[in-house]
Amino acid sequence: MNRSAYLDNNATTVVAPEVWEAMQVCKEIPLNPSSIHRYGQKARALLEKARACVAEILEVLPQDLVFTSSATESINTLIKGACASEIITTKAEHSCIHETTLALAKQGTKLTHTPLLSSGALCLASFEKALEKAEKSVLIVLGSVNAETGVLLPIEKVARLCKERGAPLLIDAVAQAGRKQLIVHPGVSALCLSGHKFHGPKGVGCFYAHPSFPYSPLLLGGQQEGRKRAGTENVEGALGFATALSLATRFLLENETKMRSLRDSFEKSLAACGVPFYINGSAPRICNVSNLAFSVDGEALLISLDAEYKIAASRGSACGSGSITPSRVLQEMGLSRERISSSIRFSFSRYNTLQEVDYATKCIAKACKRLKDVGF
Amino acid sequence: MNRSAYLDNNATTVVAPEVWEAMQVCKEIPLNPSSIHRYGQKARALLEKARACVAEILEVLPQDLVFTSSATESINTLIKGACASEIITTKAEHSCIHETTLALAKQGTKLTHTPLLSSGALCLASFEKALEKAEKSVLIVLGSVNAETGVLLPIEKVARLCKERGAPLLIDAVAQAGRKQLIVHPGVSALCLSGHKFHGPKGVGCFYAHPSFPYSPLLLGGQQEGRKRAGTENVEGALGFATALSLATRFLLENETKMRSLRDSFEKSLAACGVPFYINGSAPRICNVSNLAFSVDGEALLISLDAEYKIAASRGSACGSGSITPSRVLQEMGLSRERISSSIRFSFSRYNTLQEVDYATKCIAKACKRLKDVGF
Repeated sequence: MNRSAYLDNNATTVVAPEVWEAMQVCKEIPLNPSSIHRYGQKARALLEKARACVAEILEVLPQDLVFTSSATESINTLIKGACASEIITTKAEHSCIHETTLALAKQGTKLTHTPLLSSGALCLASFEKALEKAEKSVLIVLGSVNAETGVLLPIEKVARLCKERGAPLLIDAVAQAGRKQLIVHPGVSALCLSGHKFHGPKGVGCFYAHPSFPYSPLLLGGQQEGRKRAGTENVEGALGFATALSLATRFLLENETKMRSLRDSFEKSLAACGVPFYINGSAPRICNVSNLAFSVDGEALLISLDAEYKIAASRGSACGSGSITPSRVLQEMGLSRERISSSIRFSFSRYNTLQEVDYATKCIAKACKRLKDVGF
Repeated sequence: MNRSAYLDNNATTVVAPEVWEAMQVCKEIPLNPSSIHRYGQKARALLEKARACVAEILEVLPQDLVFTSSATESINTLIKGACASEIITTKAEHSCIHETTLALAKQGTKLTHTPLLSSGALCLASFEKALEKAEKSVLIVLGSVNAETGVLLPIEKVARLCKERGAPLLIDAVAQAGRKQLIVHPGVSALCLSGHKFHGPKGVGCFYAHPSFPYSPLLLGGQQEGRKRAGTENVEGALGFATALSLATRFLLENETKMRSLRDSFEKSLAACGVPFYINGSAPRICNVSNLAFSVDGEALLISLDAEYKIAASRGSACGSGSITPSRVLQEMGLSRERISSSIRFSFSRYNTLQEVDYATKCIAKACKRLKDVGF
């Protein structure tokens, strides 16, 4: 019987064994793709193989892909580098979008936050209005999936609106990769991914930017990555990233079905166990996220699950989980402070099992009962 | 007998087996140091262990160290983040310093280039004068070792001058780590290192910045790295970095002696083989670099060494080696165009052997003779 469960796969995922395996090719040789000798050529070949693999999956041109160190770096590069006079986004985006846009706002960039509905979905009417009133040099930045609630952006519709308006749209697809097919819809100008969110290594990200997307590089120096990102290329990382994305894509339908079934079983079992909860995010959700408000204190429950049952989950995103401020996302959905403070995010991966789900639901039921009894 | 030699260790180095080994601990567990559960705590412990290890070696406080993705990122962060009104540097620095400072100059920062002597050394008199005349908000950026010639900066003297002047000094120590003891001298405000230059993994760098060093972060988002660098921490990378630095430090004297002896044998054997050459950089050099001007075309020689003899070396730094422009460093030393175009950098590591050196010198002699015969 399971005695632990890792249900925090939107914070990070375990590296797939195939990914470690693929990176082993870098073990024996000094690999700098900028060197012109045979070792450099080998490095270049490995790097470009990785890029071609990602390009094929996204159905974009390899030269429009840039490997970075993280989605945070990609987002900082594209948002700062775009030098737009206005940015339209929401208050429910990942902190790298939120903080970067706030910093630019302090420097004079107009920052327009369009609201979320209580379902967690983008308020499309407000978004359209913001787009209509937008300045000429506007940049739109949105997550295709909210990492905390799993609520999906109606991306085709949003991309079409941006295309009609001629406004560049930057998509944070970090919480989508490995969970739902990645499609660069017409109207999507740029898109960011992070390796460690789909069983790839940490320290490597990748972004797509259409040649028409206006940005100047953030990291200056050597001529790497088509002069779009200086610094010796992380060949191991790029290989690991491509292998992980390839694996995630090859078995995507299967994995998606599995994760959805685990998530749905989880919620059904919890209800069957008599645990009272609300689902945060009633709008259409991605397959692997269950953000639930319980009738006990979320932090106490989280600590109890970890300490007593070795169950890992989280409150909000990991980046903010050290902080005591309530989730920005749930606040933006208009949820009460009490509901927010009783909320926990569970996020599944293809490696989770039904046994783990059974174990987790039983433990949550026990922990909730005990916490209720002692007054949490 | 050796049939190949990798003599391009200033471009990148092979990852030490112990480093791969140390990173294996990250294989089985999802590690995000920002997560508060047991997996997150494990990740945090690994990351802080790596930081403490680097801090001990540099004899600085762990909280003054920041892990990044590369020296390029570190340099961009510290130079841009310092927002100085004047920057004093040389034209012989790594491209990440050169390009970043040029970009800031375009935006109005005063950029003062102090000259090199023909020996490759910094002209101290000019530097002192520049420092005297400098604006109040000045930043000094210098490499402790020139990556192309191996010429050493008189760092104690430079640091003392900066300290007396109260000017922050940022040291690029990338070409020093693993070759010469790293000391954060009084007066050094910040210092950058790159993992892959001393048998660590690619995609990870680290910088030290004294709390008095003024800079705002480059990557905004989560609260990682004491709010100094957002983005999920690359735990594997940090562990690999720390292990590599620890290895390089533990056997440093031994390695330094070995590399110096290999380099000196190399130059002596070449002379003994009757190959005419000049050493570029007559000032005191680090143990592992031999930048030589031959009597044949450097590019032709480089290609011949690679293609016919599997010997890897380079012209200038790898970052610029794809370009056809002559080495900035050698130009700044006032060398003739002809001499520059006939120059090659050989850089040794602790893994090189005397057999490789013997093989390389014989091959260079053969290649030079053949190229001379056919008129190169």
